[in-house]
Amino acid sequence: MSVRTETVRIEPIAGGVTAPAGFRSASLHSGIKKKPGALDLAVLAADGRASAAGLFTTNLAKAAPVLVSQRHLETTGGHARAVVVNSGCANACTGDSGMANAVRMAAETAAALGCPIEEVLVASTGVIGVGLDIDRIAPCIRTAASGVARDAGAEMARAIMTTDPFPKEHAVAVQTPRGTFHVGGTAKGSGMIEPNMATMLGFLTTDAAVPPALLRRALADSARRTFNAITVDGECSTNDCVFALASGAQGVSVDEDLYPALRDAFYVVSKELAIGIVRGGEGATKLITITVGHARTEADAMRVAKTIANSPLVKTAVHGADPNWGRIVAAAGRAGVAFDVGQCTVHVGGTLLFEHGLPHDDMAPRAAEHLKSAEVLIEVDLGTGGEGTATVWTCDLSAEYVRINGEYRT
Amino acid sequence: MSVRTETVRIEPIAGGVTAPAGFRSASLHSGIKKKPGALDLAVLAADGRASAAGLFTTNLAKAAPVLVSQRHLETTGGHARAVVVNSGCANACTGDSGMANAVRMAAETAAALGCPIEEVLVASTGVIGVGLDIDRIAPCIRTAASGVARDAGAEMARAIMTTDPFPKEHAVAVQTPRGTFHVGGTAKGSGMIEPNMATMLGFLTTDAAVPPALLRRALADSARRTFNAITVDGECSTNDCVFALASGAQGVSVDEDLYPALRDAFYVVSKELAIGIVRGGEGATKLITITVGHARTEADAMRVAKTIANSPLVKTAVHGADPNWGRIVAAAGRAGVAFDVGQCTVHVGGTLLFEHGLPHDDMAPRAAEHLKSAEVLIEVDLGTGGEGTATVWTCDLSAEYVRINGEYRT
Repeated sequence: MSVRTETVRIEPIAGGVTAPAGFRSASLHSGIKKKPGALDLAVLAADGRASAAGLFTTNLAKAAPVLVSQRHLETTGGHARAVVVNSGCANACTGDSGMANAVRMAAETAAALGCPIEEVLVASTGVIGVGLDIDRIAPCIRTAASGVARDAGAEMARAIMTTDPFPKEHAVAVQTPRGTFHVGGTAKGSGMIEPNMATMLGFLTTDAAVPPALLRRALADSARRTFNAITVDGECSTNDCVFALASGAQGVSVDEDLYPALRDAFYVVSKELAIGIVRGGEGATKLITITVGHARTEADAMRVAKTIANSPLVKTAVHGADPNWGRIVAAAGRAGVAFDVGQCTVHVGGTLLFEHGLPHDDMAPRAAEHLKSAEVLIEVDLGTGGEGTATVWTCDLSAEYVRINGEYRT
Repeated sequence: MSVRTETVRIEPIAGGVTAPAGFRSASLHSGIKKKPGALDLAVLAADGRASAAGLFTTNLAKAAPVLVSQRHLETTGGHARAVVVNSGCANACTGDSGMANAVRMAAETAAALGCPIEEVLVASTGVIGVGLDIDRIAPCIRTAASGVARDAGAEMARAIMTTDPFPKEHAVAVQTPRGTFHVGGTAKGSGMIEPNMATMLGFLTTDAAVPPALLRRALADSARRTFNAITVDGECSTNDCVFALASGAQGVSVDEDLYPALRDAFYVVSKELAIGIVRGGEGATKLITITVGHARTEADAMRVAKTIANSPLVKTAVHGADPNWGRIVAAAGRAGVAFDVGQCTVHVGGTLLFEHGLPHDDMAPRAAEHLKSAEVLIEVDLGTGGEGTATVWTCDLSAEYVRINGEYRT
């Protein structure tokens, strides 16, 4: 049976990672964060063995938990029982003892849940180059893993925060002709008040039954247009990872026919979380949505959009509400993809500022008004004749960013 | 006759572009810059037809003067009589009328000097998307071209400035077994107080006789390690160009044997000018020298050095005197070249902070002291077994950068 797109409805619901059936979590203060009572450790557990998929940082200085999780997913062929995650310490650039500590985190979780160690995924976020106090954390992991509960998703959204200004979680119900399933998620990232906390972590859950290969495809396809389409400062962390777990508790099986429904639901949840990360970016005062159209390919469009998004001149211009289309065109021109300034048009907030090689400076005041708002829209049409389109979300660059990241750490 | 390196001496001398024999220049206020009397137009002329070479921006949104100069160099097979340059207006994204104006600048210069129009190179720097008031400028170009003088090099260094905090010029005498020749130069760039003034312009002169092919090689080889090894904010302008002119007035002919002497002299002058650009970078309070060693290739080393140099987290950390080696390692890890964190070492100001995957945090206070100085040295050894080395110069990222570039323009 083929499932037509119009027969699938995706509706927001309350909650996050434990909104889908078959997942429980627990969070507590283990003492990694110095602030008394601040949540810094979480366990997310499926009621049984779940399908699992992961996407990991492309940084070659991968943190120990990233290496352990990659190995575990390979060993199990895409299955997991639980994820254990800490904040406040990245366990990156920590050598052999760092690897041993990441394995120990998995081992303690596995022991408490009664599953093989390879079925536990590990994630960490926090300061680079500082070791975990594993003897202090180990009993806390056991306590958390033994106390997972259905209604504790919101605590996990807080326990993974480093300097994020607010927690991020989202969930949806997906109504299909074969029944309803749910997708939930939480993420953290890009508030870097304490140095080195650039990491983005994301966790998605669903109570549909999904074979590992399809789960991985849905995660990769939705992340490409969400978690991988955001940037605060162009930095790529040593610890980035996004995990997806499928419990199958809801009885709906996702096959090729139902795949688009899962992919779209992952997209909706991931987009909400990704935009939340940008809104909470360090020093951010504005959310900037950059859409590039009529590139030769989607990859070309993404490259131009990212170059504009990471341009400090564009980001400072938006911060100052300056409708400086010249910086946008210059960034597009150096992105390394096919570009003809005579075919290019630029809209800011729907106002045409540059068309086929010539400015419309009379419209600048209207665009400047738009740039004073908290949500800014930049549209660039490359006019190559191709159909490549991409959207990237970023934030402005403020003096606060410099203050946050320039503060003396030692 | 082979010329051994040790028989060549390169000594600094006073002056800039007109220090070598056979060059004259004139600069004046044409009115592009609003400030009364501010120099904004310059002509640099050889006494006769000179060998010429140019390097141009890789930005695909090339400004009209860039396109005109490229065409002229092709037409003449690497010869030129003069360069005409204006500041305050980039003549970029200005369509057909912009092209006509750039051609007119060359035509007015050629008419005054009595040379073919193709022997005039054109350069502009300033605001993007604003047209030149060519009828006002044309008579000024004639006045300048008719009044070139030997002792006016310093004025040209000022006339090409946009918001550079200081003029940049340098010259050397090159003593060889075949006689002495001279190399001089001036450059501007990267002070972007008025938006869109990201352009780097550079002009080198020599009174040696150099065939165009060798001149181009010397320019490319020295620029690769100087003008192309600096970054303020990772932006690449629509107008960047560097020109070299060889008058032959000194009677020393550069052939393959003498080529290393020319190349080294170009390197010395270009490095001085390039570092001057970084010192005058917007909001800069520190000059940062980043050296990457033991990469597989020089290109790999350059890529890692540039990634570190453009990392906003590294630049803010240096600004705040934070010896945050984690950000340096993370930037190296995402540079896209072979990288093994277990082989990597990081020195800051000569102090070892990270070695073979492990931190030396006890040394952080000493490195922090070094970071308080105006000149900061970062050394990264990738330990790949390769011999690739590169040095990049950049500046710190300050709140002043945001203020400069975020100011409201419209």
